[in-house]
Amino acid sequence: MSKLVIVGTVAFDAIETPFGKTDKILGGAATFIGLAAAQFHVNASIVSIVGGDFPQEYLDLLSNKGIDVSGVEIVENEKTFFWSGKYHNDMNTRDTLATELNVLADFKPIVPKDYIDSEVVMLGNLHPLTQMSVLDQMINKPKLVVLDTMNFWMNNALKDLLEVIKRIDVITINDEEARQLTGEYSLVVAARKIHEMGPKYVVIKKGEHGALLFHDDNVFFAPALPLEEVFDPTGAGDTFAGGFTGYLAKTGDFSFENMKKAIIYGSTLASFCVEKFGTLRMENLTNHEVHNRLQQFKTLTQFEIELT
Amino acid sequence: MSKLVIVGTVAFDAIETPFGKTDKILGGAATFIGLAAAQFHVNASIVSIVGGDFPQEYLDLLSNKGIDVSGVEIVENEKTFFWSGKYHNDMNTRDTLATELNVLADFKPIVPKDYIDSEVVMLGNLHPLTQMSVLDQMINKPKLVVLDTMNFWMNNALKDLLEVIKRIDVITINDEEARQLTGEYSLVVAARKIHEMGPKYVVIKKGEHGALLFHDDNVFFAPALPLEEVFDPTGAGDTFAGGFTGYLAKTGDFSFENMKKAIIYGSTLASFCVEKFGTLRMENLTNHEVHNRLQQFKTLTQFEIELT
Repeated sequence: MSKLVIVGTVAFDAIETPFGKTDKILGGAATFIGLAAAQFHVNASIVSIVGGDFPQEYLDLLSNKGIDVSGVEIVENEKTFFWSGKYHNDMNTRDTLATELNVLADFKPIVPKDYIDSEVVMLGNLHPLTQMSVLDQMINKPKLVVLDTMNFWMNNALKDLLEVIKRIDVITINDEEARQLTGEYSLVVAARKIHEMGPKYVVIKKGEHGALLFHDDNVFFAPALPLEEVFDPTGAGDTFAGGFTGYLAKTGDFSFENMKKAIIYGSTLASFCVEKFGTLRMENLTNHEVHNRLQQFKTLTQFEIELT
Repeated sequence: MSKLVIVGTVAFDAIETPFGKTDKILGGAATFIGLAAAQFHVNASIVSIVGGDFPQEYLDLLSNKGIDVSGVEIVENEKTFFWSGKYHNDMNTRDTLATELNVLADFKPIVPKDYIDSEVVMLGNLHPLTQMSVLDQMINKPKLVVLDTMNFWMNNALKDLLEVIKRIDVITINDEEARQLTGEYSLVVAARKIHEMGPKYVVIKKGEHGALLFHDDNVFFAPALPLEEVFDPTGAGDTFAGGFTGYLAKTGDFSFENMKKAIIYGSTLASFCVEKFGTLRMENLTNHEVHNRLQQFKTLTQFEIELT
C-alpha cells in the first residue's frame, strides 16, 4: 500500500436542488476525495485549511475514517471557505450563488512530515501554484501524481496550470474543459493534445455520460450508473477522483490495466455520492453496498462476443 | 435465421457538415437499416416507395447486398422523398433545410408475399399508422417487432403512436424523445414508463454518449466508440437499429443476453456509418473491419474485477 497525500478544499457548502435545500454542510474537494479514498483503508493525509468556525466533529468524521487531518490548518479568527449553488431541473447545470474564499485566499499548504515521502499525490482543484507547492514539498518523486482542475484556472492562471500539468501523471478534467484547454471538439484529439502537455494518462469526465481514460492509443470507457434519481451531484467528480486514486494507492499498481479497475471503482463510488446531499451518503457506505454496485457495473457493461 | 421485413424511407439526402457538402445522395431510414442488416447476410426485404427520379443503381446497390427490393414501389411520375440538413460545428445538432415528402405523402406499404410470414419486423421512423399497416399484413404474430420513432410523431400523432407502441417488442428512441414521451427526466424512470406502454425492451440512444438497453430491472449500456472525427452523423441511429435487428434476425435468439450483443453490433456498425457522407462507408464495409472494431469495443469496455 502506498501513502497518499490529498490537497484540496475542506469547506462549507450550501446546496439547493429540485429536491430540497441545505444550510451550511460539510463540503470541499479534499473532503469528498478523502471519503472516497478511505473506502480502500489507505494511509492518506488531507492538506487543507479551515477557519475557527469549522466544527471539530467534521474533522473527527474524517479522522474516524482513518484519514490523517494533521495537515488541515485551522485559522482561529477567520472563516472557512464557503460555496453555495443551485442546481437546475436537469441536475446537469447549476448556478453559483456565493463563493467566499475566506481562509483559502492565503492558503499555503504544508504537507505533514510523515507524508512528504508519499508515493501518491492527489492534487484537488485549487490554484495551480498551490498544487505545485505540494509537489515541491515531496522529498522523492512520487510514483503517481493525479491532478484535478477546472475552467476557472484556464481562464485565470493558464500559464501556471500548464506548468503544473507538465509534472503530473494523470489529469482528470471534464469534457468541456478538455475542449477549452485544447481547442479541439473531438475528445480523442483533445486527449492526445493533453498527453503532449505532459500527463501520460488523461481522464475525461462526462458526468452522467461516464468517463474516458486515454493512454497512448488505448482508450477505456466507464459509464455512469443509470440512476432513478440524482439527488445532489455536488462532489461526484471529486468522489470519482478519490475512488480512482484511492484504489491505485491501495494496490500500488499504476498500469493502464489497473487504472481501468480504478476508473470503475471511481464511477461506483460517485454513483453513491449523488444519492444524498453533500457527504451524507459517503459517510455511511458499507463494503457490502460497494460490492453489490460493482456487480451492477459488471452487469451493465460486460458482454460475451467470441471473436475468431 | 429469421426473415426480416424493414419498412422505412428510401430517399435522397443533401447534407452539409463542417467538412463539406453533398448534392442529392442516397439516404433514408430503410436504406441505412438495410445496409446494416445486410452485414449479417439475413434474408431481408425493404418495403418503401420512391419516385421515377430514383436511380436504378441505388436499388441495385441494395439488391447486390442481398436485400430484396421488390417491396419498394416506384411511382414513375412523382419524385422521391428528399431531406436536406446542415450540421452545426458540434455535429450533435442540425438544422433541417428542406423536407419534401413527395411520394411519401401517399405511401401505403405492401409487404411482398414472400415476407408476410417474417419472424422479425423492423418499423423504421414513419407515421405510426403506416408502421401499423405493416404489422397488420403479417399473417403470423412476428417473434420480434422493433420500432423506431421520433418526436415529430409525439407532437403530431401521439394517439396513433401509442397504439402501435402497444404492439411492439423493442422501441429505439433517443434520450430527449424518451423524456418527451414520458415527462420524466431520469432515463431509468422514463424506460419503466415506456415498458408500461407495451414494449418489453427499451433502447435509449444517446448519440455520441452511447445506448442503454432496459428490460424489467436489467440494464445494459454500450458506449459509442470515441472517434477522432465524426464526418457525417446522418443515418447513424438507423444503422444502429439495423445492426441490432439484423444480428437478432440472424441468430434468432431474442433473449436479453443476446440483445446485449446486438447492441454492441449496432454500435459498432454506427461507428463506421459516421466516417463518410451518407451510405458511402456502409457500402464498402468488410467483415475484417467489423471484426477489428468489435475488438476495439471489447478493449474499450471490458475489465476484470474479481468479486468475492
